[in-house]
Parts: sequence; C-alpha cells; structure tokens
Amino acid sequence: MKVGILGYGTIGSGILSLVQALPQSYGVKAVKVFDLPHKKEVLGDLFAASADDICLADDIDVVFEAMGGDKFAHECIVKALSSGKSVITSNKEVVSKHFEEFFALAQQNGVYFLCEASVGGGIPCIRTLTHQVELDTITNVYGILNGTTNFILTRMGEGQTFEAALKTAQKLGFAEADATADIEGLDVLRKISILSNIAYGTRLSYDQVKHYGIAGVTEAVLKDVASRGKVLKMVAQSTLVGDCLKVSVEPVLLDKTHLLAAAADEYNMVVYDCKSNGTLALYGKGAGRYPTASAMIADLMDILDGNKAFVPKAPIAPTVGNFDAESDFYVVKDGNATITHGLPQDGDYTFYARIMKED
Amino acid sequence: MKVGILGYGTIGSGILSLVQALPQSYGVKAVKVFDLPHKKEVLGDLFAASADDICLADDIDVVFEAMGGDKFAHECIVKALSSGKSVITSNKEVVSKHFEEFFALAQQNGVYFLCEASVGGGIPCIRTLTHQVELDTITNVYGILNGTTNFILTRMGEGQTFEAALKTAQKLGFAEADATADIEGLDVLRKISILSNIAYGTRLSYDQVKHYGIAGVTEAVLKDVASRGKVLKMVAQSTLVGDCLKVSVEPVLLDKTHLLAAAADEYNMVVYDCKSNGTLALYGKGAGRYPTASAMIADLMDILDGNKAFVPKAPIAPTVGNFDAESDFYVVKDGNATITHGLPQDGDYTFYARIMKED
Repeated sequence: MKVGILGYGTIGSGILSLVQALPQSYGVKAVKVFDLPHKKEVLGDLFAASADDICLADDIDVVFEAMGGDKFAHECIVKALSSGKSVITSNKEVVSKHFEEFFALAQQNGVYFLCEASVGGGIPCIRTLTHQVELDTITNVYGILNGTTNFILTRMGEGQTFEAALKTAQKLGFAEADATADIEGLDVLRKISILSNIAYGTRLSYDQVKHYGIAGVTEAVLKDVASRGKVLKMVAQSTLVGDCLKVSVEPVLLDKTHLLAAAADEYNMVVYDCKSNGTLALYGKGAGRYPTASAMIADLMDILDGNKAFVPKAPIAPTVGNFDAESDFYVVKDGNATITHGLPQDGDYTFYARIMKED
Repeated sequence: MKVGILGYGTIGSGILSLVQALPQSYGVKAVKVFDLPHKKEVLGDLFAASADDICLADDIDVVFEAMGGDKFAHECIVKALSSGKSVITSNKEVVSKHFEEFFALAQQNGVYFLCEASVGGGIPCIRTLTHQVELDTITNVYGILNGTTNFILTRMGEGQTFEAALKTAQKLGFAEADATADIEGLDVLRKISILSNIAYGTRLSYDQVKHYGIAGVTEAVLKDVASRGKVLKMVAQSTLVGDCLKVSVEPVLLDKTHLLAAAADEYNMVVYDCKSNGTLALYGKGAGRYPTASAMIADLMDILDGNKAFVPKAPIAPTVGNFDAESDFYVVKDGNATITHGLPQDGDYTFYARIMKED
C-alpha cells in the first residue's frame, strides 16, 4: 500500500516517521510528501512540488492530509477521494465544514474517509463512538476537547499568568503561534460538531452555535473558584433532546471529584452517555506530534485490515439550542463573583462559566 | 446471522434482549438459549435442553457464552469453535486459562473468538488494546478492574462497613453471592492476565502471580489513608521490562489527584502507557447486565461488519516478577500504620497497600 502525505509540519513529519517504522510485513510505503519548496532539502526524493502529484497520482492508495486550514485542504481531499484514494485527516476545520460531502464522496468511490485525529488527538474517541452508535443510543456527549486551554487553566491554577502558560504551551508544541481559535473556543466547537454529527446524525453548521472562551479568566478568578471547592474547565457539551440539539462551548465549573476534573495539562477527556452501556469516558493526549500521528496510523490500520468503513447516519437537521435558560452561571464583574440563574447579558460580566449540574 | 446463547442469567438475559432489539436490517436472530430445565417456562420455544443443541447445531453462526466457570464453558467453547462457529464470551476465568487454545482454534477454523466483556464490562478496553498493539508499543498496563471491590472501598470511604457495602453491591446485582474471587483479587488477576497476553504476547499462567485483596481493610484504615491525603484503590498493574513481566494485584495508595482516583463506585478504569500515543485511559461500567451484554453485542458487530479478527502476538514466556522490592508499602499492624520499603513479611501486617510511585 502506497501512501502520500500532504504537509510536512509537526504532524506530517510524525506520520512519515511512524509509517517508516511500521513492520515491513505490513507492506506500507510512503512515496510522496507535499510541502513548500524549501522542504525539498530534507525530503529529497520524497518531495512532491504539487499536491496533485499525490491527490491525482495513479500509484498512491492513501492520502494523509496534515496541512490544516479549509479551502486548499478541501480541494485536495475532494480530488483524492474522487480519484479513488482513501483519505486520512487530522484537520477538524475541514472535517466539520464538509462532513457530509467527504463521507458521501468516500462511499460513492468505495474508499475510506477517516478522521480519528481531528478530535481528541491520540484518543480513539471517533472509533469508539462510531462503533457504539452501531449498537447503542448515545444520549449525551461532552468533554475537554482542547489541550491548549486545558493546559493554560491547569497552569494558571498553579499560579502562572495566562501569558506565561500560553507561552509554555507554544514552546511544548501543542499551541499554535496564533492560539485564538483555541482560546475563544472555535477549535472546540469544530470538534463537538464532528462528534455530534457522528453520535446523532446531525450536520451541525457551527454558525448556529455560539462559543465563549477563556480570554477573560484571571488568576483571581481561578483562586475564587478553588475556594468554592470547584474546578474551572473549558467544556463542550452536546445533547439531542427530541428535535432539539443543545450544544454549548464554554468554561464550566465542576466539582473537584467530577470525572473531567481528573484531566489536567494538555490531556483531553471525552465522555459518552449511552443507553445500554452507561457512561463511557476516554482520556489521553489531545494534541502533539506522535499522539496525533499515531491516531492517523490507527486509521491506516483500519484500511489495511479491511475493516468496515464508517457511514454516518442519514442526516437530520434539528433545531439548535443551548443550556442557557436552565443553568446556573458563575459570573464575574468588577472583580466580584456571583451566581445567577440563566446566562448573564452582554455588559453584565467580564467572565462567566456555566455551573455543571450534578447527575 | 443466527445466534445461540449459553446461559440465561443476568448477562444471558441482557444479551437476548439486546439482540432482539437490534434493527431488523442487521439480520440477526437469536434461535436457541441453553440453561437449566426450569428456564424453559420463560424461554418457551427458544429453550435448548442441551448445550450441544447450540455448540454443534448446523444453523447457528455465533455462540454467546454467558455461563461462567471453567470446565463446562471450556468444553462448549472448544466444541463451538471446532464446528465453525464464532464465539463471544464474557467469562474471564475460561479466557485467562485457555487464551492460547481458543485463539488458535478460532484461527484454524476461520472464525472469531471475541472476549471484550471479559475485562472491564462495557469498556471497549480489549478492542482499543488490540488495535493499539498493531501500531504502537505498550509499556505499561494498569487499572481498576473490579467493580465490586471499588464499590466497597468507595462506600467504606463514606462511612459504611465492609459488610453493608458488600450487601449493597450484591443487591445492585454486580457482586456475586460468593464474592471471594472479587475480594481476594483473583478476578482482577484473571483480567490483568488477559490484558498482558494481548499487550505483550505473554501467556501468563496465573499461579505465577500472587494476589492480595481487601479483606483486611477497615473503616479506620480508610480514615487514616484519607488523613494522609491519599486514596485506597484495588489496582492491577503489568509491565514488561526486557525479559521480565512484572505483575501486581493488590491494594494501592494513590494521590487524590491521580487519574485512577476519579473512578468511584462500580466504575472501572483501564490505563495503557504507549510509546507513541502516551497515556490512554478508558473509564466506564465494569459490570452489570447491560454494560456487559452491550460489550458482547459490540463483538457481534465486529463479526457482522467482517472486521479483521484479532490474532495474539506469538507467545513469549517471560520470567514473572513484581514491584515488591522497589516499592514503598503502607503497612497496618495492631491498629498502627507505618511506611516500609519493600513488602512486609507474613505476620508483620494485618493489612498492607503498595504506594503508587508518582510519574
């Protein structure tokens, strides 16, 4: 099986080294890697000057997309699937925006579209979910889906400033140079969209959902939260209630003994409430070169093993709501924290967090 | 696809109801259920008077074994596999004792042998592990693998007596009437044997490993442990270091912030340390009718989907050791607790627990 890789950054280089380390008996060979011209020096004969050399090549079976972004990645994935190649991607932006199109194209062309690494890094949360939806009913999906914000909140809880914690995360290689999408919750919204689409058959367009991040959090807020015996986490939640999909992406106050409180630093945790199986949770590295690349190799194994490809449920288009009206909120304004019922109005807060209900 | 069920107790009845609730499009039909004669009344036409009516039947494709125990279950599984039927079991005793034989028989006959529910109840810990070993190197396996003892320790931490907590667990249906195998750690040893065999290719014979349980724990011990800022959990751990497999099954003292401390009541948590993927943990219901039965239906889905059957690595026979010499222990004698380096001698304790090293 011959594979091509689009993008030779942190993830792409991880994929190449893991592919090259596979036992020879697996018969997998990386034949082309596309990136900007200056990468030719390191890549040598593997270097491809054009993405088409991979997406349209006759001798490539599987394309790894590790470039990120929307427009060009979308174009490449469509070309690759349409020309009969399986595609494996870690790109949550492109997957969440073109979920229906990619899976339909893969089915039409009898190939795989796999995106385990687009949510939860090295955690097999999509594999587990696709398998569970075959046999059980999912009633609730929630979790800590962003390593950068979880790392910042953990380190701020230990006394670091926001800026220092963010810098450390960037040095360690799991926060982007521009971490806006992480900090404001857009990254998390993309991930919970993908999980919702798989769990419930929705095709969530994420301009339907507001996201609120941790930019307003201060060390004083974290101290006050701790003094209340609570923990602050950036949480995404998605529940399908009848015809309404309730989605939230916001900071949340949890009891210290809550399962999610056990996920610190850059770790992620994904929780599925299932009708037969009860609560099922997965925990692991949500970001980083080798966790992400190894999740993509896990996808490759499914192709090698000839396992059944995932086909999403027929699309449903529920109304989209949130938990605002039914929740209590922890609201900070002028350095004072109060608890209110229902979401505070714009201008009435400098920071807020939803208070997670106890089961 | 026609299925037969051996055993119509808690698990077997759960399997039957989940099979009957599957969408008709899956084409799965339960045709025979074997149990003692008095079950004929409830089972009606489904009742099979002999296990052979299922294991040797021409028209059955998949056999669910939900009887428990070793000798008769072993006989039935061998018959079923040898006559070309796939077998799905939740029976950790029989799987841990005949691991090599069952998987070899399945391979010879081109059928599946699947045992997800034998470890961790509804947690897909075997599926995740078999997939991870294809692409990564596992360096350490540990976790809370017994719901009954975890429930007892949780409730005793809230002030209940051992006896009252055990009775509640039995009432709730996840502790056996004779809970000796749970309380003394034999159940956990069976489960960590299965996980070790899959993770490392070992064929652990569990008379090679000592197991120590929670029979000696008292409310006073739990109070003292809490006053030290620690949590007491029943933990199994297995690490392959060169040619030596270190296995332990014993109570362990953990920091309150340790990941395993987040698993309370009857919940289980399984942790895999992986070379590429880092730490991966799975959490869920370790016992109970529907979690266990749904894990067995998950196995059935693998057969229906035609996914690749798991074949264990070629067997290795490492020397077997433990963590005794390198660990500190919390040792209780005459109501006094002390910390010693190395395992205390027989007669030098009324209860002990290993102190988990920090990473």
